[in-house]
Amino acid sequence: MTQPVFQTVCFVGIGLIGSSLARAMRKHGLARHFITLDISQAARKTAVELGVVDVATDNPAEAVAEADLVVIGAPVGATQAVGEAIGPHLKPGTIVTDVGSVKLAVIRDLMPLLPEGVHFVPGHPIAGTEHSGPENGFAELFEGRWNILTPLPGTNEAAVEKMAQLWRCIGSMVEVMDPHHHDKVLAITSHLPHLIAYTIVGTANDLEGHMQQEIIKFSASGFRDFTRIAASDPIMWRDVFLNNREAVLEVLQRFTEDLTALQRAIRWGEGEVLQKRFTETRAIRRAIIDAKQA
Amino acid sequence: MTQPVFQTVCFVGIGLIGSSLARAMRKHGLARHFITLDISQAARKTAVELGVVDVATDNPAEAVAEADLVVIGAPVGATQAVGEAIGPHLKPGTIVTDVGSVKLAVIRDLMPLLPEGVHFVPGHPIAGTEHSGPENGFAELFEGRWNILTPLPGTNEAAVEKMAQLWRCIGSMVEVMDPHHHDKVLAITSHLPHLIAYTIVGTANDLEGHMQQEIIKFSASGFRDFTRIAASDPIMWRDVFLNNREAVLEVLQRFTEDLTALQRAIRWGEGEVLQKRFTETRAIRRAIIDAKQA
Repeated sequence: MTQPVFQTVCFVGIGLIGSSLARAMRKHGLARHFITLDISQAARKTAVELGVVDVATDNPAEAVAEADLVVIGAPVGATQAVGEAIGPHLKPGTIVTDVGSVKLAVIRDLMPLLPEGVHFVPGHPIAGTEHSGPENGFAELFEGRWNILTPLPGTNEAAVEKMAQLWRCIGSMVEVMDPHHHDKVLAITSHLPHLIAYTIVGTANDLEGHMQQEIIKFSASGFRDFTRIAASDPIMWRDVFLNNREAVLEVLQRFTEDLTALQRAIRWGEGEVLQKRFTETRAIRRAIIDAKQA
Repeated sequence: MTQPVFQTVCFVGIGLIGSSLARAMRKHGLARHFITLDISQAARKTAVELGVVDVATDNPAEAVAEADLVVIGAPVGATQAVGEAIGPHLKPGTIVTDVGSVKLAVIRDLMPLLPEGVHFVPGHPIAGTEHSGPENGFAELFEGRWNILTPLPGTNEAAVEKMAQLWRCIGSMVEVMDPHHHDKVLAITSHLPHLIAYTIVGTANDLEGHMQQEIIKFSASGFRDFTRIAASDPIMWRDVFLNNREAVLEVLQRFTEDLTALQRAIRWGEGEVLQKRFTETRAIRRAIIDAKQA
Protein backbone atom coordinates (compact mmCIF):
# COMPACT_ATOMS: atom_id res chain seq x y z
CA MET A 1 0.00 0.00 0.00
CA THR A 2 1.36 3.43 -1.00
CA GLN A 3 1.74 5.72 1.99
CA PRO A 4 0.00 9.02 1.25
CA VAL A 5 2.41 11.50 2.81
CA PHE A 6 1.42 15.12 3.24
CA GLN A 7 3.79 18.02 3.74
CA THR A 8 1.62 20.01 6.11
CA VAL A 9 -1.68 18.97 7.65
CA CYS A 10 -3.92 21.47 9.40
CA PHE A 11 -6.61 20.33 11.82
CA VAL A 12 -9.42 22.84 12.11
CA GLY A 13 -10.66 21.91 15.58
CA ILE A 14 -8.43 19.68 17.67
CA GLY A 15 -11.00 17.74 19.72
CA LEU A 16 -11.35 14.01 20.26
CA ILE A 17 -11.45 13.09 16.57
CA GLY A 18 -8.98 15.68 15.25
CA SER A 19 -6.39 14.91 17.90
CA SER A 20 -6.80 11.15 17.41
CA LEU A 21 -6.28 11.52 13.67
CA ALA A 22 -3.25 13.74 14.26
CA ARG A 23 -1.77 11.14 16.61
CA ALA A 24 -2.48 8.34 14.13
CA MET A 25 -0.96 10.25 11.21
CA ARG A 26 2.14 11.04 13.23
CA LYS A 27 2.46 7.43 14.37
CA HIS A 28 2.30 6.20 10.78
CA GLY A 29 4.45 9.01 9.34
CA LEU A 30 1.71 10.40 7.11
CA ALA A 31 2.58 14.09 7.43
CA ARG A 32 5.74 16.11 8.13
CA HIS A 33 4.25 19.16 9.78
CA PHE A 34 1.19 19.32 12.08
CA ILE A 35 -0.81 22.50 12.67
CA THR A 36 -4.09 23.21 14.38
CA LEU A 37 -6.51 26.07 13.99
CA ASP A 38 -8.77 26.16 17.05
CA ILE A 39 -10.78 28.93 18.68
CA SER A 40 -10.21 27.45 22.14
CA GLN A 41 -7.00 28.63 23.79
CA ALA A 42 -7.12 25.70 26.21
CA ALA A 43 -7.37 23.18 23.37
CA ARG A 44 -4.47 24.85 21.50
CA LYS A 45 -2.30 24.78 24.62
CA THR A 46 -3.10 21.12 25.36
CA ALA A 47 -2.52 20.02 21.77
CA VAL A 48 0.93 21.61 21.67
CA GLU A 49 1.93 20.48 25.16
CA LEU A 50 0.98 16.87 24.37
CA GLY A 51 2.89 17.02 21.09
CA VAL A 52 -0.26 16.32 19.09
CA VAL A 53 0.61 19.25 16.80
CA ASP A 54 3.73 21.35 16.23
CA VAL A 55 1.93 24.67 15.94
CA ALA A 56 -1.43 25.90 17.25
CA THR A 57 -2.99 29.17 16.17
CA ASP A 58 -6.27 31.04 15.94
CA ASN A 59 -5.15 32.78 12.75
CA PRO A 60 -6.76 31.09 9.71
CA ALA A 61 -4.26 32.44 7.17
CA GLU A 62 -1.28 31.24 9.19
CA ALA A 63 -2.97 27.87 9.79
CA VAL A 64 -3.89 26.80 6.27
CA ALA A 65 -1.70 28.79 3.85
CA GLU A 66 0.94 26.07 3.62
CA ALA A 67 -1.34 23.07 4.21
CA ASP A 68 -1.77 20.43 1.52
CA LEU A 69 -4.35 18.69 3.74
CA VAL A 70 -6.97 20.40 5.88
CA VAL A 71 -9.10 18.28 8.23
CA ILE A 72 -12.21 20.00 9.59
CA GLY A 73 -13.13 18.51 12.96
CA ALA A 74 -15.43 21.23 14.27
CA PRO A 75 -19.12 20.88 15.24
CA VAL A 76 -21.04 20.71 11.95
CA GLY A 77 -22.96 23.89 12.84
CA ALA A 78 -19.66 25.78 12.57
CA THR A 79 -18.96 24.62 9.01
CA GLN A 80 -19.95 27.84 7.27
CA ALA A 81 -17.89 29.97 9.67
CA VAL A 82 -14.92 27.66 9.13
CA GLY A 83 -15.33 27.94 5.36
CA GLU A 84 -15.45 31.72 5.51
CA ALA A 85 -12.33 31.82 7.68
CA ILE A 86 -10.12 29.42 5.74
CA GLY A 87 -11.53 29.61 2.18
CA PRO A 88 -9.60 32.70 1.06
CA HIS A 89 -6.26 31.26 2.28
CA LEU A 90 -6.35 27.77 0.76
CA LYS A 91 -3.86 27.07 -1.99
CA PRO A 92 -4.81 25.21 -5.19
CA GLY A 93 -4.31 21.45 -4.97
CA THR A 94 -5.02 21.27 -1.25
CA ILE A 95 -7.32 18.48 -0.12
CA VAL A 96 -10.01 19.52 2.36
CA THR A 97 -11.82 16.81 4.30
CA ASP A 98 -14.04 16.74 7.34
CA VAL A 99 -15.13 14.25 9.99
CA GLY A 100 -18.69 15.46 10.56
CA SER A 101 -21.56 13.13 11.48
CA VAL A 102 -23.83 14.64 8.83
CA LYS A 103 -22.78 15.09 5.24
CA LEU A 104 -25.41 16.95 3.17
CA ALA A 105 -25.38 20.00 5.45
CA VAL A 106 -21.57 20.13 5.54
CA ILE A 107 -21.39 19.95 1.75
CA ARG A 108 -24.10 22.62 1.44
CA ASP A 109 -22.31 24.97 3.85
CA LEU A 110 -18.72 24.44 2.76
CA MET A 111 -18.65 23.88 -1.00
CA PRO A 112 -19.56 27.44 -2.06
CA LEU A 113 -16.72 28.82 0.06
CA LEU A 114 -13.88 26.72 -1.34
CA PRO A 115 -11.77 28.26 -4.13
CA GLU A 116 -11.23 26.67 -7.53
CA GLY A 117 -8.60 23.92 -7.50
CA VAL A 118 -9.20 22.82 -3.90
CA HIS A 119 -10.45 19.22 -3.60
CA PHE A 120 -13.17 18.58 -1.04
CA VAL A 121 -13.56 14.95 0.10
CA PRO A 122 -16.24 14.77 2.82
CA GLY A 123 -15.69 11.97 5.32
CA HIS A 124 -17.08 10.46 8.48
CA PRO A 125 -15.09 8.06 10.68
CA ILE A 126 -17.49 5.75 12.57
CA ALA A 127 -15.52 5.92 15.79
CA GLY A 128 -15.50 7.93 18.96
CA THR A 129 -15.90 7.83 22.70
CA GLU A 130 -18.04 9.82 25.11
CA HIS A 131 -15.00 11.91 26.02
CA SER A 132 -14.21 15.24 24.36
CA GLY A 133 -11.10 17.33 23.89
CA PRO A 134 -7.54 16.80 22.58
CA GLU A 135 -6.40 15.17 25.83
CA ASN A 136 -8.74 12.23 25.21
CA GLY A 137 -7.63 11.37 21.68
CA PHE A 138 -5.54 8.30 20.89
CA ALA A 139 -3.87 6.98 17.74
CA GLU A 140 -5.73 3.64 17.73
CA LEU A 141 -9.26 5.10 17.76
CA PHE A 142 -9.88 4.29 14.10
CA GLU A 143 -8.41 0.79 13.95
CA GLY A 144 -10.91 -1.79 12.73
CA ARG A 145 -13.57 0.91 12.28
CA TRP A 146 -15.27 2.15 9.14
CA ASN A 147 -14.72 5.47 7.48
CA ILE A 148 -17.39 6.69 5.09
CA LEU A 149 -16.30 9.02 2.29
CA THR A 150 -19.05 10.87 0.41
CA PRO A 151 -17.33 12.59 -2.56
CA LEU A 152 -19.48 14.58 -4.97
CA PRO A 153 -19.72 13.74 -8.67
CA GLY A 154 -16.76 15.36 -10.44
CA THR A 155 -14.42 15.36 -7.44
CA ASN A 156 -10.78 14.75 -8.33
CA GLU A 157 -10.40 10.97 -8.16
CA ALA A 158 -6.77 11.07 -7.07
CA ALA A 159 -7.78 13.18 -4.05
CA VAL A 160 -10.49 10.69 -3.07
CA GLU A 161 -8.08 7.78 -3.44
CA LYS A 162 -5.42 9.58 -1.39
CA MET A 163 -7.90 10.09 1.45
CA ALA A 164 -9.03 6.47 1.26
CA GLN A 165 -5.38 5.38 1.47
CA LEU A 166 -4.79 7.62 4.47
CA TRP A 167 -7.65 6.05 6.41
CA ARG A 168 -6.57 2.54 5.44
CA CYS A 169 -3.02 3.28 6.58
CA ILE A 170 -4.27 4.07 10.09
CA GLY A 171 -6.31 0.89 10.26
CA SER A 172 -9.78 1.84 9.02
CA MET A 173 -11.97 0.23 6.39
CA VAL A 174 -13.27 2.67 3.77
CA GLU A 175 -16.76 2.84 2.26
CA VAL A 176 -17.76 5.30 -0.45
CA MET A 177 -21.38 6.43 -0.23
CA ASP A 178 -23.80 9.01 -1.53
CA PRO A 179 -24.09 11.80 1.11
CA HIS A 180 -27.89 11.65 1.14
CA HIS A 181 -27.81 7.92 1.82
CA HIS A 182 -25.15 8.44 4.51
CA ASP A 183 -27.41 10.82 6.39
CA LYS A 184 -30.30 8.34 6.29
CA VAL A 185 -28.19 5.39 7.49
CA LEU A 186 -26.57 7.39 10.29
CA ALA A 187 -29.95 8.77 11.39
CA ILE A 188 -30.89 5.26 12.45
CA THR A 189 -27.51 3.85 13.57
CA SER A 190 -26.27 6.90 15.43
CA HIS A 191 -28.51 9.96 15.64
CA LEU A 192 -31.67 8.23 16.87
CA PRO A 193 -29.79 6.15 19.49
CA HIS A 194 -28.14 9.29 20.83
CA LEU A 195 -31.45 11.17 20.96
CA ILE A 196 -33.11 8.29 22.80
CA ALA A 197 -30.22 7.98 25.26
CA TYR A 198 -30.25 11.71 25.97
CA THR A 199 -34.00 11.52 26.51
CA ILE A 200 -34.05 8.58 28.91
CA VAL A 201 -31.19 9.96 30.99
CA GLY A 202 -32.97 13.31 31.05
CA THR A 203 -36.20 11.64 32.18
CA ALA A 204 -34.32 10.04 35.07
CA ASN A 205 -32.56 13.32 35.83
CA ASP A 206 -35.93 15.01 36.34
CA LEU A 207 -37.02 12.61 39.09
CA GLU A 208 -37.01 13.65 42.73
CA GLY A 209 -33.67 13.70 44.55
CA HIS A 210 -33.87 10.43 46.48
CA MET A 211 -34.94 8.52 43.35
CA GLN A 212 -31.92 9.94 41.52
CA GLN A 213 -29.57 8.47 44.11
CA GLU A 214 -31.14 5.06 43.68
CA ILE A 215 -31.00 5.29 39.91
CA ILE A 216 -27.25 5.86 40.12
CA LYS A 217 -26.84 3.05 42.62
CA PHE A 218 -28.78 0.49 40.59
CA SER A 219 -27.79 1.70 37.14
CA ALA A 220 -26.07 -1.59 36.26
CA SER A 221 -29.48 -3.01 35.39
CA GLY A 222 -29.56 -1.35 31.95
CA PHE A 223 -29.60 2.38 32.52
CA ARG A 224 -25.84 2.87 32.68
CA ASP A 225 -25.38 1.78 29.04
CA PHE A 226 -27.48 4.78 28.03
CA THR A 227 -25.61 7.21 30.25
CA ARG A 228 -22.35 6.57 28.40
CA ILE A 229 -23.90 7.66 25.11
CA ALA A 230 -25.73 10.53 26.80
CA ALA A 231 -22.40 11.89 28.05
CA SER A 232 -21.34 12.77 24.49
CA ASP A 233 -20.46 16.33 23.51
CA PRO A 234 -23.61 18.53 23.75
CA ILE A 235 -22.66 21.05 21.07
CA MET A 236 -21.59 18.44 18.56
CA TRP A 237 -24.91 16.64 19.04
CA ARG A 238 -27.05 19.77 19.01
CA ASP A 239 -25.56 20.51 15.60
CA VAL A 240 -26.13 16.98 14.33
CA PHE A 241 -29.85 17.14 15.07
CA LEU A 242 -30.26 20.63 13.66
CA ASN A 243 -28.42 19.61 10.49
CA ASN A 244 -29.99 16.21 9.81
CA ARG A 245 -33.51 17.20 10.72
CA GLU A 246 -35.56 15.45 8.05
CA ALA A 247 -33.84 12.06 8.33
CA VAL A 248 -33.93 12.15 12.14
CA LEU A 249 -37.61 13.12 12.29
CA GLU A 250 -38.47 10.34 9.86
CA VAL A 251 -36.80 7.53 11.84
CA LEU A 252 -38.08 9.05 15.07
CA GLN A 253 -41.62 8.73 13.72
CA ARG A 254 -41.06 5.04 12.96
CA PHE A 255 -39.57 4.51 16.41
CA THR A 256 -42.51 6.21 18.13
CA GLU A 257 -45.01 4.05 16.26
CA ASP A 258 -43.13 0.91 17.28
CA LEU A 259 -42.88 2.03 20.90
CA THR A 260 -46.59 2.82 20.98
CA ALA A 261 -47.36 -0.68 19.71
CA LEU A 262 -45.31 -2.24 22.52
CA GLN A 263 -46.86 0.12 25.07
CA ARG A 264 -50.30 -1.04 23.94
CA ALA A 265 -49.23 -4.69 24.20
CA ILE A 266 -48.07 -4.10 27.79
CA ARG A 267 -51.30 -2.31 28.70
CA TRP A 268 -53.49 -5.10 27.29
CA GLY A 269 -51.28 -7.93 28.52
CA GLU A 270 -50.47 -9.21 25.02
CA GLY A 271 -47.50 -11.39 25.95
CA GLU A 272 -47.15 -13.02 22.54
CA VAL A 273 -46.65 -9.61 20.84
CA LEU A 274 -43.85 -8.76 23.28
CA GLN A 275 -42.17 -12.15 23.04
CA LYS A 276 -42.20 -12.11 19.23
CA ARG A 277 -40.64 -8.64 19.10
CA PHE A 278 -38.01 -9.45 21.74
CA THR A 279 -37.02 -12.61 19.87
CA GLU A 280 -36.52 -10.87 16.50
CA THR A 281 -34.00 -8.41 17.92
CA ARG A 282 -31.53 -11.11 18.99
CA ALA A 283 -30.58 -11.85 15.38
CA ILE A 284 -29.22 -8.34 14.80
CA ARG A 285 -26.89 -8.64 17.78
CA ARG A 286 -25.55 -11.89 16.38
CA ALA A 287 -24.94 -10.26 12.99
CA ILE A 288 -23.02 -7.38 14.61
CA ILE A 289 -20.83 -9.82 16.52
CA ASP A 290 -20.21 -11.77 13.29
CA ALA A 291 -19.28 -8.51 11.51
CA LYS A 292 -16.71 -7.84 14.28
CA GLN A 293 -18.30 -4.49 15.15
CA ALA A 294 -19.47 -5.53 18.64
CA MET B 1 -18.34 -12.31 58.73
CA THR B 2 -20.20 -15.52 59.63
CA GLN B 3 -20.47 -17.85 56.64
CA PRO B 4 -24.13 -18.85 56.17
CA VAL B 5 -23.74 -22.50 55.23
CA PHE B 6 -26.74 -24.44 53.92
CA GLN B 7 -27.06 -28.19 53.88
CA THR B 8 -28.93 -28.47 50.59
CA VAL B 9 -29.73 -25.68 48.16
CA CYS B 10 -32.22 -26.17 45.35
CA PHE B 11 -32.23 -23.88 42.31
CA VAL B 12 -35.62 -23.75 40.65
CA GLY B 13 -34.51 -22.77 37.15
CA ILE B 14 -30.81 -23.07 36.38
CA GLY B 15 -30.31 -20.23 33.88
CA LEU B 16 -27.74 -17.45 33.84
CA ILE B 17 -28.53 -16.17 37.33
CA GLY B 18 -29.28 -19.49 39.03
CA SER B 19 -26.16 -21.14 37.66
CA SER B 20 -23.99 -18.13 38.53
CA LEU B 21 -25.28 -18.18 42.11
CA ALA B 22 -24.70 -21.94 42.32
CA ARG B 23 -21.12 -21.49 41.12
CA ALA B 24 -20.53 -18.63 43.56
CA MET B 25 -21.97 -20.58 46.50
CA ARG B 26 -19.84 -23.59 45.63
CA LYS B 27 -16.73 -21.45 45.27
CA HIS B 28 -17.28 -19.92 48.71
CA GLY B 29 -18.41 -23.16 50.37
CA LEU B 30 -21.88 -21.91 51.22
CA ALA B 31 -23.77 -25.18 50.65
CA ARG B 32 -22.95 -28.87 50.84
CA HIS B 33 -25.37 -30.26 48.31
CA PHE B 34 -26.57 -28.60 45.08
CA ILE B 35 -29.81 -29.57 43.32
CA THR B 36 -31.73 -28.03 40.42
CA LEU B 37 -35.36 -28.33 39.48
CA ASP B 38 -35.72 -27.30 35.84
CA ILE B 39 -38.31 -28.13 33.18
CA SER B 40 -35.66 -28.03 30.44
CA GLN B 41 -33.90 -31.33 29.90
CA ALA B 42 -31.05 -29.53 28.09
CA ALA B 43 -30.50 -27.16 31.00
CA ARG B 44 -30.53 -30.04 33.51
CA LYS B 45 -27.99 -31.98 31.42
CA THR B 46 -25.68 -28.97 31.03
CA ALA B 47 -25.85 -28.04 34.71
CA VAL B 48 -24.84 -31.52 35.80
CA GLU B 49 -22.17 -31.96 33.13
CA LEU B 50 -20.55 -28.64 34.08
CA GLY B 51 -20.66 -29.56 37.77
CA VAL B 52 -22.86 -26.57 38.57
CA VAL B 53 -25.18 -28.88 40.53
CA ASP B 54 -24.88 -32.41 41.86
CA VAL B 55 -28.41 -33.49 40.96
CA ALA B 56 -30.89 -32.22 38.36
CA THR B 57 -34.52 -33.29 38.26
CA ASP B 58 -37.94 -32.31 37.00
CA ASN B 59 -39.60 -33.83 40.07
CA PRO B 60 -40.53 -31.04 42.54
CA ALA B 61 -40.82 -33.33 45.58
CA GLU B 62 -37.41 -34.86 44.97
CA ALA B 63 -35.91 -31.41 44.34
CA VAL B 64 -37.03 -29.47 47.40
CA ALA B 65 -37.92 -32.02 50.11
CA GLU B 66 -34.47 -31.88 51.70
CA ALA B 67 -33.60 -28.28 50.82
CA ASP B 68 -33.02 -25.71 53.54
CA LEU B 69 -32.62 -23.05 50.84
CA VAL B 70 -34.67 -22.76 47.64
CA VAL B 71 -33.67 -20.16 45.03
CA ILE B 72 -36.31 -19.44 42.39
CA GLY B 73 -34.63 -18.26 39.19
CA ALA B 74 -37.48 -18.80 36.72
CA PRO B 75 -39.20 -16.14 34.56
CA VAL B 76 -41.47 -14.19 36.91
CA GLY B 77 -44.54 -15.24 34.92
CA ALA B 78 -43.90 -18.82 36.07
CA THR B 79 -43.93 -17.94 39.77
CA GLN B 80 -47.41 -19.26 40.51
CA ALA B 81 -46.73 -22.54 38.72
CA VAL B 82 -43.47 -22.89 40.65
CA GLY B 83 -45.27 -22.22 43.92
CA GLU B 84 -47.92 -24.82 43.15
CA ALA B 85 -45.25 -27.39 42.27
CA ILE B 86 -42.91 -26.93 45.23
CA GLY B 87 -45.20 -25.54 47.97
CA PRO B 88 -46.54 -28.88 49.21
CA HIS B 89 -43.04 -30.34 49.52
CA LEU B 90 -41.21 -27.61 51.43
CA LYS B 91 -40.18 -28.42 54.98
CA PRO B 92 -40.63 -25.96 57.88
CA GLY B 93 -37.67 -23.66 58.45
CA THR B 94 -36.65 -23.63 54.78
CA ILE B 95 -35.72 -20.24 53.33
CA VAL B 96 -37.23 -19.51 49.90
CA THR B 97 -35.78 -16.65 47.90
CA ASP B 98 -36.02 -15.51 44.29
CA VAL B 99 -34.02 -13.41 41.86
CA GLY B 100 -36.87 -11.89 39.86
CA SER B 101 -36.73 -8.40 38.34
CA VAL B 102 -40.15 -7.49 39.72
CA LYS B 103 -41.10 -8.01 43.33
CA LEU B 104 -44.77 -7.16 43.97
CA ALA B 105 -46.05 -9.69 41.43
CA VAL B 106 -43.72 -12.43 42.69
CA ILE B 107 -44.85 -11.85 46.28
CA ARG B 108 -48.50 -11.81 45.17
CA ASP B 109 -48.13 -15.08 43.24
CA LEU B 110 -45.92 -17.02 45.62
CA MET B 111 -46.85 -16.08 49.21
CA PRO B 112 -50.26 -17.80 49.30
CA LEU B 113 -48.68 -21.06 48.15
CA LEU B 114 -45.96 -21.33 50.81
CA PRO B 115 -46.73 -23.45 53.89
CA GLU B 116 -46.52 -22.17 57.46
CA GLY B 117 -42.95 -22.06 58.81
CA VAL B 118 -41.26 -21.43 55.45
CA HIS B 119 -39.45 -18.08 55.27
CA PHE B 120 -39.78 -16.13 52.03
CA VAL B 121 -37.09 -13.48 51.40
CA PRO B 122 -37.67 -11.91 47.95
CA GLY B 123 -34.47 -10.71 46.29
CA HIS B 124 -33.14 -9.15 43.11
CA PRO B 125 -29.46 -9.17 42.19
CA ILE B 126 -28.68 -6.18 39.95
CA ALA B 127 -26.40 -8.15 37.68
CA GLY B 128 -26.62 -10.07 34.46
CA THR B 129 -25.44 -10.31 30.89
CA GLU B 130 -27.29 -10.60 27.60
CA HIS B 131 -26.50 -14.34 27.53
CA SER B 132 -28.92 -16.97 28.83
CA GLY B 133 -28.58 -20.53 30.07
CA PRO B 134 -26.49 -22.41 32.64
CA GLU B 135 -23.45 -22.55 30.33
CA ASN B 136 -23.11 -18.76 30.50
CA GLY B 137 -23.10 -18.37 34.27
CA PHE B 138 -19.95 -17.53 36.24
CA ALA B 139 -19.15 -17.27 39.95
CA GLU B 140 -18.00 -13.62 39.80
CA LEU B 141 -21.20 -12.22 38.26
CA PHE B 142 -22.37 -10.65 41.52
CA GLU B 143 -19.09 -9.18 42.75
CA GLY B 144 -19.30 -5.44 43.36
CA ARG B 145 -22.99 -5.42 42.39
CA TRP B 146 -26.04 -4.63 44.46
CA ASN B 147 -28.60 -7.12 45.67
CA ILE B 148 -31.97 -5.76 46.72
CA LEU B 149 -33.92 -7.73 49.32
CA THR B 150 -37.61 -6.85 49.77
CA PRO B 151 -38.80 -8.79 52.86
CA LEU B 152 -42.38 -8.33 53.98
CA PRO B 153 -43.29 -7.01 57.43
CA GLY B 154 -43.19 -9.92 59.88
CA THR B 155 -40.65 -12.01 57.96
CA ASN B 156 -38.27 -13.95 60.20
CA GLU B 157 -35.35 -11.59 60.75
CA ALA B 158 -32.76 -14.33 61.04
CA ALA B 159 -33.76 -15.59 57.58
CA VAL B 160 -33.38 -12.10 56.09
CA GLU B 161 -30.01 -11.67 57.75
CA LYS B 162 -28.85 -15.07 56.56
CA MET B 163 -29.71 -14.17 52.96
CA ALA B 164 -27.98 -10.80 53.30
CA GLN B 165 -24.87 -12.59 54.59
CA LEU B 166 -24.98 -15.04 51.71
CA TRP B 167 -24.96 -12.25 49.12
CA ARG B 168 -22.21 -10.38 50.96
CA CYS B 169 -20.10 -13.53 51.07
CA ILE B 170 -20.16 -13.77 47.28
CA GLY B 171 -19.16 -10.13 46.88
CA SER B 172 -22.45 -8.21 46.61
CA MET B 173 -23.64 -5.16 48.50
CA VAL B 174 -27.11 -5.59 50.03
CA GLU B 175 -29.95 -3.05 50.13
CA VAL B 176 -33.27 -3.69 51.88
CA MET B 177 -36.20 -2.01 50.19
CA ASP B 178 -39.98 -1.95 50.11
CA PRO B 179 -41.14 -4.12 47.15
CA HIS B 180 -43.38 -1.40 45.76
CA HIS B 181 -40.52 1.07 45.75
CA HIS B 182 -38.24 -1.54 44.16
CA ASP B 183 -40.64 -1.94 41.25
CA LYS B 184 -40.74 1.82 40.67
CA VAL B 185 -36.95 2.26 40.79
CA LEU B 186 -36.31 -0.69 38.50
CA ALA B 187 -38.97 0.47 36.05
CA ILE B 188 -36.74 3.46 35.27
CA THR B 189 -33.26 1.94 35.68
CA SER B 190 -33.93 -1.35 33.96
CA HIS B 191 -37.36 -2.00 32.47
CA LEU B 192 -37.68 1.21 30.46
CA PRO B 193 -34.11 0.98 29.07
CA HIS B 194 -34.78 -2.58 27.94
CA LEU B 195 -38.10 -1.64 26.33
CA ILE B 196 -36.47 1.26 24.48
CA ALA B 197 -33.57 -0.90 23.33
CA TYR B 198 -35.89 -3.62 22.09
CA THR B 199 -37.91 -0.98 20.25
CA ILE B 200 -35.04 0.76 18.49
CA VAL B 201 -33.45 -2.51 17.41
CA GLY B 202 -36.86 -3.65 16.19
CA THR B 203 -37.32 -0.42 14.23
CA ALA B 204 -33.99 -1.05 12.51
CA ASN B 205 -34.88 -4.68 11.94
CA ASP B 206 -37.97 -3.63 9.99
CA LEU B 207 -36.00 -1.61 7.44
CA GLU B 208 -35.41 -2.90 3.94
CA GLY B 209 -32.72 -5.55 3.47
CA HIS B 210 -29.87 -3.39 2.13
CA MET B 211 -30.33 -0.82 4.90
CA GLN B 212 -30.10 -3.63 7.47
CA GLN B 213 -26.68 -4.62 6.18
CA GLU B 214 -25.45 -1.06 6.52
CA ILE B 215 -26.88 -0.74 10.01
CA ILE B 216 -24.87 -3.76 11.08
CA LYS B 217 -21.76 -2.44 9.37
CA PHE B 218 -21.94 1.01 10.92
CA SER B 219 -23.40 -0.01 14.28
CA ALA B 220 -20.37 1.28 16.21
CA SER B 221 -21.83 4.77 15.98
CA GLY B 222 -24.26 4.19 18.86
CA PHE B 223 -26.68 1.50 17.73
CA ARG B 224 -24.61 -1.48 18.89
CA ASP B 225 -24.88 -0.46 22.56
CA PHE B 226 -28.64 -0.97 22.27
CA THR B 227 -28.34 -4.33 20.53
CA ARG B 228 -26.53 -5.83 23.50
CA ILE B 229 -29.45 -5.02 25.81
CA ALA B 230 -31.97 -6.04 23.15
CA ALA B 231 -30.38 -9.50 22.99
CA SER B 232 -31.60 -10.30 26.51
CA ASP B 233 -33.87 -13.27 27.17
CA PRO B 234 -37.27 -12.69 25.47
CA ILE B 235 -39.41 -14.72 27.88
CA MET B 236 -37.84 -13.22 30.97
CA TRP B 237 -38.50 -9.73 29.63
CA ARG B 238 -42.01 -10.47 28.37
CA ASP B 239 -42.84 -11.48 31.95
CA VAL B 240 -41.20 -8.40 33.46
CA PHE B 241 -43.36 -6.06 31.40
CA LEU B 242 -46.55 -8.02 32.02
CA ASN B 243 -45.84 -8.07 35.76
CA ASN B 244 -44.72 -4.49 36.34
CA ARG B 245 -47.28 -2.89 34.06
CA GLU B 246 -48.32 0.18 36.05
CA ALA B 247 -44.80 1.33 36.94
CA VAL B 248 -43.53 0.75 33.38
CA LEU B 249 -46.44 2.58 31.76
CA GLU B 250 -45.95 5.50 34.13
CA VAL B 251 -42.24 6.04 33.34
CA LEU B 252 -42.92 5.36 29.67
CA GLN B 253 -45.40 8.24 29.67
CA ARG B 254 -42.76 10.57 31.14
CA PHE B 255 -40.21 9.37 28.59
CA THR B 256 -42.62 9.93 25.69
CA GLU B 257 -43.35 13.48 26.84
CA ASP B 258 -39.64 14.24 27.08
CA LEU B 259 -38.95 12.71 23.66
CA THR B 260 -41.79 14.71 22.12
CA ALA B 261 -40.30 17.91 23.55
CA LEU B 262 -36.92 17.15 21.95
CA GLN B 263 -38.61 16.19 18.67
CA ARG B 264 -40.35 19.54 18.63
CA ALA B 265 -37.06 21.34 19.35
CA ILE B 266 -35.46 19.57 16.38
CA ARG B 267 -38.38 20.41 14.09
CA TRP B 268 -38.32 24.08 15.03
CA GLY B 269 -34.55 24.38 15.15
CA GLU B 270 -34.41 25.26 18.85
CA GLY B 271 -30.72 24.61 19.41
CA GLU B 272 -30.61 26.03 22.93
CA VAL B 273 -33.27 23.54 24.13
CA LEU B 274 -31.23 20.64 22.78
CA GLN B 275 -27.92 21.90 24.13
CA LYS B 276 -29.35 22.48 27.61
CA ARG B 277 -30.82 18.98 27.76
CA PHE B 278 -27.65 17.34 26.41
CA THR B 279 -25.53 19.17 28.99
CA GLU B 280 -27.66 18.12 32.00
CA THR B 281 -27.27 14.42 31.22
CA ARG B 282 -23.46 14.45 31.56
CA ALA B 283 -23.67 14.86 35.34
CA ILE B 284 -25.46 11.53 35.82
CA ARG B 285 -22.72 9.67 33.96
CA ARG B 286 -20.13 11.26 36.24
CA ALA B 287 -22.12 10.20 39.34
CA ILE B 288 -22.32 6.60 38.10
CA ILE B 289 -18.58 6.51 37.52
CA ASP B 290 -18.01 7.96 41.01
CA ALA B 291 -20.33 5.29 42.48
CA LYS B 292 -18.17 2.61 40.76
CA GLN B 293 -21.16 1.21 38.86
CA ALA B 294 -19.91 2.20 35.39
